[in-house]
Amino acid sequence: MNNIVRKNILKVKPYVPGKPIEDVQREFGLKRVIKLASNENCLGPSPKALAAVKKGMASINRYPDASSFYLKKKLSRELGVSEDMIILGNGSDEVIVVAIRTFLNEGEKVIIARPTFLIYEIASQISNTEMQFVPLTKDFKYDLKAMRDAICPNTKMVFIANPDNPTGTYVTKKDLEAFIEGVPRDVIIFLDEAYFEFANYGFKDYPNGMDYLDRPNIIVSRSFSKAYGLAGLRVGYGVANPELVAYMERVRDPFNINLLAQVGALAALDDKAFLNKTLKFTAKEKEVLYKAFDRMELKYITSATNFILVDVKKDCKAVFNELLKRGIIVRDMKAWGLDTYIRVTVGTAEENKMFLKALKEIL
Amino acid sequence: MNNIVRKNILKVKPYVPGKPIEDVQREFGLKRVIKLASNENCLGPSPKALAAVKKGMASINRYPDASSFYLKKKLSRELGVSEDMIILGNGSDEVIVVAIRTFLNEGEKVIIARPTFLIYEIASQISNTEMQFVPLTKDFKYDLKAMRDAICPNTKMVFIANPDNPTGTYVTKKDLEAFIEGVPRDVIIFLDEAYFEFANYGFKDYPNGMDYLDRPNIIVSRSFSKAYGLAGLRVGYGVANPELVAYMERVRDPFNINLLAQVGALAALDDKAFLNKTLKFTAKEKEVLYKAFDRMELKYITSATNFILVDVKKDCKAVFNELLKRGIIVRDMKAWGLDTYIRVTVGTAEENKMFLKALKEIL
Repeated sequence: MNNIVRKNILKVKPYVPGKPIEDVQREFGLKRVIKLASNENCLGPSPKALAAVKKGMASINRYPDASSFYLKKKLSRELGVSEDMIILGNGSDEVIVVAIRTFLNEGEKVIIARPTFLIYEIASQISNTEMQFVPLTKDFKYDLKAMRDAICPNTKMVFIANPDNPTGTYVTKKDLEAFIEGVPRDVIIFLDEAYFEFANYGFKDYPNGMDYLDRPNIIVSRSFSKAYGLAGLRVGYGVANPELVAYMERVRDPFNINLLAQVGALAALDDKAFLNKTLKFTAKEKEVLYKAFDRMELKYITSATNFILVDVKKDCKAVFNELLKRGIIVRDMKAWGLDTYIRVTVGTAEENKMFLKALKEIL
Repeated sequence: MNNIVRKNILKVKPYVPGKPIEDVQREFGLKRVIKLASNENCLGPSPKALAAVKKGMASINRYPDASSFYLKKKLSRELGVSEDMIILGNGSDEVIVVAIRTFLNEGEKVIIARPTFLIYEIASQISNTEMQFVPLTKDFKYDLKAMRDAICPNTKMVFIANPDNPTGTYVTKKDLEAFIEGVPRDVIIFLDEAYFEFANYGFKDYPNGMDYLDRPNIIVSRSFSKAYGLAGLRVGYGVANPELVAYMERVRDPFNINLLAQVGALAALDDKAFLNKTLKFTAKEKEVLYKAFDRMELKYITSATNFILVDVKKDCKAVFNELLKRGIIVRDMKAWGLDTYIRVTVGTAEENKMFLKALKEIL
């Protein structure tokens, strides 16, 4: 039956998600397990979102609004763009998939940094898209000049994670603007801003993708999974000029956004207190982690997100496993080719202490 | 910029969903609006599912389990198939999309009845798949003989909605088995059983797709959106042999099933009381509607689902609009080419009465 499947599907390397807490509890017989593996918001979901979900529950026998009318309207006001410039996704992952399915003919090319967020590669492979990978610079930053030079007549899209995952670095306003100027207008720049809120808090030369939407070839994506604390609900969005959005809307599944996700995200946008608390807390705890890494003489990358990439100077899979035994889930960077690195999400003050204590024991 | 989009995307006719209650309230300034347009469960969501969602809410800052471990385990027991034969979808719509993306090379062919559920055509068009349409018989049934005859060496998949939407008819056990025998083993039969529970209640010659999974080329899909009353949560699933499922798993978005959808669907499977109440009630109210249509001398199709296709003998768009003004949303069948037909979902006893009263006024 192996001739029944599309050949390119056989080449897809499935995405390996962060281990769920319940899995580790089951496998190791542990009661308390802390997860610092998926860059979730350790302070929980926005309380306003929770209240809205509770109120919306009674209607889950009804289909969600296929147009996400109220959520789009609210986002439109928040972002200062018209409603026809917004497309909702089942997480911003889905916006990436929809963009590829809308614009990439088989055999056309996308440009992807290496290492970076893995979904660009997986989604491209599924669509049988040619991929060209451009290594990060030695200090783990996007090499925009090399990415520009990689563009050829066959190139249709370039992915820029800003800030980047798993490194936590970002492209500056100046560098992004020079890059945008240099890219032909029929090549789409996909600007993935899943960690926008964290980078926008205190990094003055971090650019806001919304400022470039007068260009015909820019798609910006953002997420409710990180700073807004709604990873479990699956809501993200893309913003682009109305023509690109109208094309993508033809590819989007009509009921892709869950009814509770719509009401939860809508309320979360109103919960500025929770967002500010999250941003302030994350910045503070990053400093705690940096200082501890300094004392342990571990190299890390200053992060514009809610996670930190750190060189543990040992086989990262072994360190990952030792942490797991102690009920702490992080991400080993083997799949990204960074053999001595782990990525750790900023947790609560108590979780970060537990992580640091365990790490010291292990190293 | 029109050369930026894939040519086939320009041919996609977007899916037009049933009008949401809130839209009609806004547009017509109505307080009470009843929706009999999307084949939702009028008795609400399963109470056990509601309780589970309420309990699960506190964790929505966490990503859902990408493997849907507990839900798959439970489904496996319920259906009597192994866990590696199950794939979860963001609604069974997504299972359809994933199947096409996994198996159909551009230019290969799918066979689709006409009229039938519109997503087969839309999803195929998005993937640039060739489509061959086979008209229903005069009594609105799938013409399996003609569909078998339409298979050519280039055919990869045949869609069978059983029961069918929007007609409510079904393919009998005997006819399905003859069809399966006649289809080459490298052509996938996609058996869409979104309304399985309704058809399986009292229609003795209705076949159960699970009985044919020893065949290498059958995918059965089902939904939590209809009999289980969870349309707002978006959960459906596909069942097939492990090899087909493993291929589709490579295409599925890792976090496609919302955290609350997983816990809600899990609990709904345990709520046999609610399911039985739904099936019994729906059967009873269908009789009420049939009798009223008989008295009004309107032709309708006996339905194995929770909706009825009825010939109102007038332009269906006009009747739809008149009902709308009275706060009643049904589906006009214009998009399906059935110009004098509407499709009405079985509502509560009170809703059905209001619908019938309004329909009499209008006709």
